[in-house]
Amino acid sequence: MILIGERINAGFKDIANAIRMKDPAPVKRWAIAQTEAGAAYLDVNIGAASRDPQDMAWLVRTIQNTVSTRLSIDSTNVEVIEAGLDAIDERGVLINSTTADAGKLDQLIPLAVKHNAMLLGLAMDDRGSPQDVDRRVENGATVFMAAVEAGIPPDRIILDPILMPIKFMQEQVPHVLETIEQFTHLSDPSPHISVGVSNVGTKAAEKGRIIRTFLVMAMAKGLDTVICNVCDDELIAAVATAELMLNREIYTDSYIRAFLMRQAV
Amino acid sequence: MILIGERINAGFKDIANAIRMKDPAPVKRWAIAQTEAGAAYLDVNIGAASRDPQDMAWLVRTIQNTVSTRLSIDSTNVEVIEAGLDAIDERGVLINSTTADAGKLDQLIPLAVKHNAMLLGLAMDDRGSPQDVDRRVENGATVFMAAVEAGIPPDRIILDPILMPIKFMQEQVPHVLETIEQFTHLSDPSPHISVGVSNVGTKAAEKGRIIRTFLVMAMAKGLDTVICNVCDDELIAAVATAELMLNREIYTDSYIRAFLMRQAV
Repeated sequence: MILIGERINAGFKDIANAIRMKDPAPVKRWAIAQTEAGAAYLDVNIGAASRDPQDMAWLVRTIQNTVSTRLSIDSTNVEVIEAGLDAIDERGVLINSTTADAGKLDQLIPLAVKHNAMLLGLAMDDRGSPQDVDRRVENGATVFMAAVEAGIPPDRIILDPILMPIKFMQEQVPHVLETIEQFTHLSDPSPHISVGVSNVGTKAAEKGRIIRTFLVMAMAKGLDTVICNVCDDELIAAVATAELMLNREIYTDSYIRAFLMRQAV
Repeated sequence: MILIGERINAGFKDIANAIRMKDPAPVKRWAIAQTEAGAAYLDVNIGAASRDPQDMAWLVRTIQNTVSTRLSIDSTNVEVIEAGLDAIDERGVLINSTTADAGKLDQLIPLAVKHNAMLLGLAMDDRGSPQDVDRRVENGATVFMAAVEAGIPPDRIILDPILMPIKFMQEQVPHVLETIEQFTHLSDPSPHISVGVSNVGTKAAEKGRIIRTFLVMAMAKGLDTVICNVCDDELIAAVATAELMLNREIYTDSYIRAFLMRQAV
């Protein structure tokens, strides 16, 4: 399971403040905490707080001075992504994200090739968020084929079916599960499949339980990557348990600890 | 989700003692507790403690005098099943279980027809427990076709792919998940699919978490029935949450309570 830590995101107040004040402390704290919790990638997102590409470059440099974890450069703005990629050292990097829009693909695929980056594609296009399985699969396939044609191998592509809050768009949640299964049939080996799993719990009373339950159900359908709160111990224990059920972790009574130790490598 | 309460089973000491002493108190207590917790059926099993069909009849009568919940008559011995069926009043009943053995099918299918019982078929045959997906699917299909030919409709048939302990037979667990999905393709509408979910946690350190995680993963693959500890609140909350994700429960902040109230009807 590829765990991507969601926490260095200006949607959180401490990170928004850190960016505004150029205070590295909160950024370093979360870089370390998420790395220790097993994140393979740290997502980096300057959010709506800023449109300044230099803020992304500052965040990237601040994290790079702290940990050796790979980074996920997260923005809807291509210039912001480019600034993040330009600031990065030799470590692995992931572009989060393109959509199926031709305009987006034409800009981001060459960047992924140039920086040897993994590419995460959202199953949406210029018509907005998808409302059914077919549109999700169609958009995912568009991203996948464009990336493969440009020479990016399937195992460097991550598709995201767009998870929505159960509280507000419940009927979309089983569509996401179904789309995950269909994405696994796109190629052999299949692309990676990811969701931003915290979305499903937005404003819900049983948030933790909902996020945890959705995540392991999605893993049963083929999800192998996730953007999540890696510091949520119960969530990570659920992931370790699901990996066990899929025979990707070997059973020992202390399999959760073993999983954490392997993730943190 | 069809919940079958596992607790009236002579594998538990209090029930074994109750049978030996003909003491109705523990049996009545579990009949009430499991009914209140939302069991649609109560499994009734005299276990290895007795081969006496009259013990099954006594258990059935004791439960019938206490609650109106439907019963699952559970034995590997056809005479014991027959004694349970003969003791039953007009309530719904489930035969747990036949295997794909011709000898078993020839005896139990006519009993199911005669008593208008649901029939649970284990995906095993006279060669013992299955070790792969193909044998499980083959055995399940054998039971399914024999039952349908005898006039039992698909929605009165429950197939069980045989769940094994993760601690001792880990490689079998993903086979069970895969078999569940394949069972859903046997017919439209598909038969019900069930496991004895406690098995997966046998002797494991993280038993509760393992059982809960497996169950919701299995639900993502198509499981719609389960024999379980219905008095495990965390397990039932996980089931309610999975039902929500599959859009079979409507979201409210108190969806767990709503699920329990509907189950207990």
